Amino acid sequence: MIIVLKPDCTESQLEHIFEKIEEMGFRYELSRGVKRSLVGVIGEEDQLRNAPLRAIPGVEDVVPVLKPFKLASREFQEHDSSFDLGHGVRVGDGDLMMIAGPCAIEGEDVLMEIAKEVKAGGANVLRGGAFKPRTSPYSFQGMGEEGLKILRNVGDELGMPVVTEVMDPRQVELIDKYTDLFQIGARNMQNFNLLNEVGQTNRPVLLKRGMSATVQDLLMSAEYILSNGNKQVILCERGIRSFDSSTRNLLDLAMVPNVKSLSHLPVIVDPSHATGRPDLIPSMALAGIAAGADGIHIEVHNCPEKALSDGQQALLPDQYAEVIKQIRELAPLFGKRIPQPQ
Amino acid sequence: MIIVLKPDCTESQLEHIFEKIEEMGFRYELSRGVKRSLVGVIGEEDQLRNAPLRAIPGVEDVVPVLKPFKLASREFQEHDSSFDLGHGVRVGDGDLMMIAGPCAIEGEDVLMEIAKEVKAGGANVLRGGAFKPRTSPYSFQGMGEEGLKILRNVGDELGMPVVTEVMDPRQVELIDKYTDLFQIGARNMQNFNLLNEVGQTNRPVLLKRGMSATVQDLLMSAEYILSNGNKQVILCERGIRSFDSSTRNLLDLAMVPNVKSLSHLPVIVDPSHATGRPDLIPSMALAGIAAGADGIHIEVHNCPEKALSDGQQALLPDQYAEVIKQIRELAPLFGKRIPQPQ
Amino acid sequence: MIIVLKPDCTESQLEHIFEKIEEMGFRYELSRGVKRSLVGVIGEEDQLRNAPLRAIPGVEDVVPVLKPFKLASREFQEHDSSFDLGHGVRVGDGDLMMIAGPCAIEGEDVLMEIAKEVKAGGANVLRGGAFKPRTSPYSFQGMGEEGLKILRNVGDELGMPVVTEVMDPRQVELIDKYTDLFQIGARNMQNFNLLNEVGQTNRPVLLKRGMSATVQDLLMSAEYILSNGNKQVILCERGIRSFDSSTRNLLDLAMVPNVKSLSHLPVIVDPSHATGRPDLIPSMALAGIAAGADGIHIEVHNCPEKALSDGQQALLPDQYAEVIKQIRELAPLFGKRIPQPQ
Amino acid sequence: MIIVLKPDCTESQLEHIFEKIEEMGFRYELSRGVKRSLVGVIGEEDQLRNAPLRAIPGVEDVVPVLKPFKLASREFQEHDSSFDLGHGVRVGDGDLMMIAGPCAIEGEDVLMEIAKEVKAGGANVLRGGAFKPRTSPYSFQGMGEEGLKILRNVGDELGMPVVTEVMDPRQVELIDKYTDLFQIGARNMQNFNLLNEVGQTNRPVLLKRGMSATVQDLLMSAEYILSNGNKQVILCERGIRSFDSSTRNLLDLAMVPNVKSLSHLPVIVDPSHATGRPDLIPSMALAGIAAGADGIHIEVHNCPEKALSDGQQALLPDQYAEVIKQIRELAPLFGKRIPQPQ
Repeated sequence: MIIVLKPDCTESQLEHIFEKIEEMGFRYELSRGVKRSLVGVIGEEDQLRNAPLRAIPGVEDVVPVLKPFKLASREFQEHDSSFDLGHGVRVGDGDLMMIAGPCAIEGEDVLMEIAKEVKAGGANVLRGGAFKPRTSPYSFQGMGEEGLKILRNVGDELGMPVVTEVMDPRQVELIDKYTDLFQIGARNMQNFNLLNEVGQTNRPVLLKRGMSATVQDLLMSAEYILSNGNKQVILCERGIRSFDSSTRNLLDLAMVPNVKSLSHLPVIVDPSHATGRPDLIPSMALAGIAAGADGIHIEVHNCPEKALSDGQQALLPDQYAEVIKQIRELAPLFGKRIPQPQ
Repeated sequence: MIIVLKPDCTESQLEHIFEKIEEMGFRYELSRGVKRSLVGVIGEEDQLRNAPLRAIPGVEDVVPVLKPFKLASREFQEHDSSFDLGHGVRVGDGDLMMIAGPCAIEGEDVLMEIAKEVKAGGANVLRGGAFKPRTSPYSFQGMGEEGLKILRNVGDELGMPVVTEVMDPRQVELIDKYTDLFQIGARNMQNFNLLNEVGQTNRPVLLKRGMSATVQDLLMSAEYILSNGNKQVILCERGIRSFDSSTRNLLDLAMVPNVKSLSHLPVIVDPSHATGRPDLIPSMALAGIAAGADGIHIEVHNCPEKALSDGQQALLPDQYAEVIKQIRELAPLFGKRIPQPQ
Repeated sequence: MIIVLKPDCTESQLEHIFEKIEEMGFRYELSRGVKRSLVGVIGEEDQLRNAPLRAIPGVEDVVPVLKPFKLASREFQEHDSSFDLGHGVRVGDGDLMMIAGPCAIEGEDVLMEIAKEVKAGGANVLRGGAFKPRTSPYSFQGMGEEGLKILRNVGDELGMPVVTEVMDPRQVELIDKYTDLFQIGARNMQNFNLLNEVGQTNRPVLLKRGMSATVQDLLMSAEYILSNGNKQVILCERGIRSFDSSTRNLLDLAMVPNVKSLSHLPVIVDPSHATGRPDLIPSMALAGIAAGADGIHIEVHNCPEKALSDGQQALLPDQYAEVIKQIRELAPLFGKRIPQPQ
Repeated sequence: MIIVLKPDCTESQLEHIFEKIEEMGFRYELSRGVKRSLVGVIGEEDQLRNAPLRAIPGVEDVVPVLKPFKLASREFQEHDSSFDLGHGVRVGDGDLMMIAGPCAIEGEDVLMEIAKEVKAGGANVLRGGAFKPRTSPYSFQGMGEEGLKILRNVGDELGMPVVTEVMDPRQVELIDKYTDLFQIGARNMQNFNLLNEVGQTNRPVLLKRGMSATVQDLLMSAEYILSNGNKQVILCERGIRSFDSSTRNLLDLAMVPNVKSLSHLPVIVDPSHATGRPDLIPSMALAGIAAGADGIHIEVHNCPEKALSDGQQALLPDQYAEVIKQIRELAPLFGKRIPQPQ
């Protein structure tokens, strides 16, 4: 932690600063510059971070030196993490997680049909929402437990691991009975109590980046889960808010190598929510693989016109199969493969 | 709802569109343009909004005409809402809610001292966090129920209504025993289950705008609370994410008259979280009043150097009293007054 | 300048860093931390800033300590700048510059009529564009020199200083003949050759903030003008790009006290371009004054329906007079007054 | 163009609206909805766009239906554009433009050495700035005409087309003597007079996206060049402003297929300026190709520690050669190849 002093910081302010630093149990070192001086504060960065140094008179700025996350960091674990998702499917360390399915679970027949098609197309994880975080209280909110049962049945029948969103700490126990992975949506990335709760389960967690979260914010949210003992966190880029309304959000693909430079956790890309435009999804899925992603999340519906949620951003099963075909050609160049569920 | 057709939309696609619209139970009207044609879809806008019209072939764009919120809208209630907060303090319709206090409750002595000073300075609502949503799992997370008791005691002793943050639907029942108002923080603005839960209480809710929420998103979140039967929602602007790191967030004061043009709900401004800079808080508080706000939320601490959370953005009690003094001069020009707790 | 070393920086890399620093003519000081070490580089900050320190192996980050602007800074000049604009009108140090007029000059009769009305309403500077930076090449591009003549005539007849936009270094000489102030538009804030050119004139320059410019970027652009010898720079906040399309841009009023903490230059606010919504302009003008602005820029047209450019964001003369009336009540509370042209 | 009427629009306001529309020479069609009515305005969209319809009383919103660009649009030209850049190098329609070189020209020896290395590595266009748009007036501003001569000599000697930035309309004639392509930098994307000037030359123009420009803004700026008669415009994504400071800008790769859905112009990607981080450049270059880009722009320096401008974002020649090697493997999957200069 470096304290930058104001140009007019007096000697008595400086002494007060030194006292405060010692009072907090840290050491310091003064470095006098031509126009401005610095105080290096030495100690455990975590404790330093919580110390209100900026409020001391004479201080202009406080510059942190270390990253605030630990368990999520490359420094904590140098090699890439990889996790087992069930039915022989893995993610990380070369294995691509290909999640597909409808936005919301709408009934067993529809889900089974879509699931068969995406599995045939090459998907290895089935998705479907039973509890839906909708902007409007008047929109379809999901089928609830009935939907979870349908998802489990379809997953079991086809031998595919399934993932579904959890929105509320009170749902964790229920959803845990039916799902293979928990999804935390973008709107809940900083719902810390929910993070604590899934951190106490043994299931992999797919953590989506919030719409205005920095890479560091995302890793701090992962740290909440990890620090509760659950080491299986998969990060997901799904677009951030920006000023151009020609796409729904702005897909930040540089986030993939950026996260990988800082963390050992797998990262996947969701071009469906990021763009909201089926015509852009295929090229963004391919670009995601080229950026180094460990998987792709795509919404697929066999009849987008009838979907109860976000139909306009879904690919048709045929279009999905075509994307997977192209990813299969591309993946080996990046040392990646798509494991098939068994 | 207006459907904009693709320039190459065929007659058979057009017929398919008409069929779909009728199937969904709506009426339509075709309007042929020089280069592009439109279909006006007529029916209840709520149902229209959920219809996946954009997924029908031949459709280029779908333009909604009505706003998606109802109970929060000026069209639903033309006059400004105003609520009783306890101890004779009201907000709205000319009454300014002046919330002050520390970020986190740190102990009874500290809170009592700060509370006395802010009350003497002119505050009419006391704040203090017992459950803190911290970016890092390693930061101070709040005193929990013990903190709530302290807040209640201090509020009772000084005759001030109190407000504290609720982060989890499971905390609503507990916090309800101790607080006068619930605060929903920016990170939980779209925690819809939490909104539903506070929507079933009888206490006013201070709903803070999310860091990347549009004005419409905020009003939709208010709509969740209102549609559960709780009519007492107070909106709060606390800055949004932007690219200039010289302030913590970007305070959007145009949001105040913008919300008021659309909604009858009271709106307050929080310059502490918005700027993160004590030197900018006083002028932003005054600008907030001039923008038409119904109150100001400011963090105050008697020893920012020792604060356990966000000390660097707190004003000193003297500085706070000075701001209130200036607001008292300004308020009458805008038909506003600061009610004193009794 | 502080160099943060990588945790795995070797001793031989460290020696290479020291050599490089000495080669560049600077001194250094090493400070070893628990997990990471720092090197303070001591020397003229300007030269330091241009030194490619970040490219040296073993360096993780380089943290500047001083601000990169000089002539624009409070450290260079402690007291507020104030300038004479002609006809007895001044800006800064308590004097408010009230700019009003149409977006584009459309003819002498129209401009004269609008000018008379805004002067009667309380404006003290007349604006009107003769060269218009339009997003589309097919939109009205302005009347050119003919427009400049009209503007000059109307200003002279009514005894008002006039301001008009310059878009091209080749126009500076021509426009200089007709105008009292140059305006540099948001799109040209970093048109450095244009800044150099107006920096060589003796006229005050109204420099508008770019749509994605930080406060520091804006002050650096002012520095271009100042370093050419022209000390009369007035900064203007006119909204930045953001994600909520319910206003045209996002007005950043915290920028006013933020700039004033860093610089002695006057700052005005333009709620017309910032919001694009006549219904929000009056309250944002008042909030601007409360934020500490040295003036307000508002587009006024007597027949917005017929305006050739941006008619939808103009106030009517009556509405403008009402805003000025309210500012006259507000201004004394902030130690400000509106000088009348003589 | 669709006019959305206010819910309380009176019949006499409606009649006034109809009169205004007819006065402007357009036709209209009224469509009455359940809560709100619409008026479709029929006529040439260009003229409609300039009509101040939003200023008419009773109007709530005006929704454009057609895109405002023409010559740049897919509707104007369905097939992809491709241009000859000199020395047998082409861009577009399968040919990748691989631009490399230093940020600034610093001398003939340095440039020659870098140019030989990037050519050997696989670059087919050489870049180097002679006039540099620097944020600070105190930074190195480029070598000017001397730099242009060096660039020309090196290009001729090695048989590579060269590109350099033009910042000022007055430089167009001079630079035209030395360069094969003009580059318009991000800060000048809406310097319309400069666009007009290069629009009157016969050289291809590399137009970089502004830091807060929408895709539509960029295409409108291309339209300025095209409408002056120069059909050779190449668009370049180089990152936009966002809130996460861990990269310099935010690379928007979805912009590539997004532009291609709207326009026939070639699009290239610049990961150097977008990320500012050499460690992220290789994967973003590959992702750019996978996104469908027609070329990649990368800064390369043989001694970044000594570079006079932006050294910290440059790749070393070896690193560059490695990126090109990977692109050569990837390109055929996307029907692309890298033409070699002859």
